Amino acid sequence: MNDSEEYQQRKQFYDQLLTIYGRKPVLEALQQPGIQIHRLHLADSNKSAAILDDIVAIAQRHNAEICYHSKQALSRISRNGKQDQGVAVDLVLGGYRAYEDFLKTAPNQYELLALDGITNPQNLGMILRTVAASGIAGVLLPKKGCAQIDPLVIKASAGALFRCPILRCDDLAAALQNFQAAGAKVCGLSSHARQSLGEFQALAPTIFVLGNETHGVSSAVQALADHNLRIPMANGVESLNVAITASLLAFRHQLTGA
Amino acid sequence: MNDSEEYQQRKQFYDQLLTIYGRKPVLEALQQPGIQIHRLHLADSNKSAAILDDIVAIAQRHNAEICYHSKQALSRISRNGKQDQGVAVDLVLGGYRAYEDFLKTAPNQYELLALDGITNPQNLGMILRTVAASGIAGVLLPKKGCAQIDPLVIKASAGALFRCPILRCDDLAAALQNFQAAGAKVCGLSSHARQSLGEFQALAPTIFVLGNETHGVSSAVQALADHNLRIPMANGVESLNVAITASLLAFRHQLTGA
Repeated sequence: MNDSEEYQQRKQFYDQLLTIYGRKPVLEALQQPGIQIHRLHLADSNKSAAILDDIVAIAQRHNAEICYHSKQALSRISRNGKQDQGVAVDLVLGGYRAYEDFLKTAPNQYELLALDGITNPQNLGMILRTVAASGIAGVLLPKKGCAQIDPLVIKASAGALFRCPILRCDDLAAALQNFQAAGAKVCGLSSHARQSLGEFQALAPTIFVLGNETHGVSSAVQALADHNLRIPMANGVESLNVAITASLLAFRHQLTGA
Repeated sequence: MNDSEEYQQRKQFYDQLLTIYGRKPVLEALQQPGIQIHRLHLADSNKSAAILDDIVAIAQRHNAEICYHSKQALSRISRNGKQDQGVAVDLVLGGYRAYEDFLKTAPNQYELLALDGITNPQNLGMILRTVAASGIAGVLLPKKGCAQIDPLVIKASAGALFRCPILRCDDLAAALQNFQAAGAKVCGLSSHARQSLGEFQALAPTIFVLGNETHGVSSAVQALADHNLRIPMANGVESLNVAITASLLAFRHQLTGA
């Protein structure tokens, strides 16, 4: 293996890591099923505490490496020295990577969900669980405007987060434009759209965008959408929970057998 | 209209009423969108309080009848004098009725969901919202073993509860046997089942039973199920959130166009 290949493999591995910090958040994350721990990081200035013993015990059960650092070095790992409380953990998320990596080797046809302002951690966790179970290509999760992966999200995902193909991006609209440049179509979901999901046929790679729980798809994304789709609703109901909408999109091929 | 018809109409109306009691629960329920208030009941012994003023103001905005009672009479309405705090409200649930009523006039073909030990109010609310939006015939909600409709459930349903066809029963297994006697088939959902949902064809009225969030379908219901079905899952995910499963069942005909 040459240096460049080794570098790529290491980059790929480190890209899958998610760092969580703070005593309670770390303990709660480690208590979830399906967790994969790379390294536990502790400040060597920590005084002994029951919660730290619990955290170390779980890390040991998982045979995770435990590293001690100066307070300053730890704050470079947590990137939040004010709130890390002397503890951080690197979790391995099997399907976590930059969307650019996905695009480089994307198949001819695929479907993704994209999250545009999903701020409720329960909803995010349920969506990640559903996407993992559905087998679709993944979910595009921007750093801006969405809830980020934290212990609440891990809990709501029932551990499925560790198996979910999550494509990271910074800004959703910019990422969607790159997907469009590569031939993908962007579909915004909206209860006001004229076209129903059942009428839509995906003839190209397709990204379904789910908008904020209250305000829907953002205007920046709306402006670049190729289609707007609605899920028909009975009894005058105005909208579905966003995680429910996500599940109908992600599982529609299994249900239709298409 | 003869006496018997009048009695039937009145019975039908009163069957749709759901009584909620306690100051905070009543206020929270009344603050939800889509709420329909029949009567607000107050104890004439209540001392003035800001929360009561808020409750009365909402009832007035809805042109609801406001009735004053002795403490004792109010406790007969709330059926819980110890916790009603001098307040109860009758809400009108448009689709709320006894399952026996549904069976009397049931169409030749229909699909229902049945809830077997759904204890999380968030899940119950999401299921009721989804069922209302899907247009399927209804959801069978037993008094025993499930979360009951309370302000948390109303909130999680985003008000759709007031439009959801909810069929009340006491004991689920007994009700399912009555449905079976009337020609319906009972399908338990389980991630361990051999048959997948996509392989199942509903040739008779069908009731899909959703089990407890942790323990699944109860043994009493399992014993009488005609089919056991699973939803195929990718990436080694073991289960879906029960409200997600409910949505896939309720919406599968819209998605398939069948």
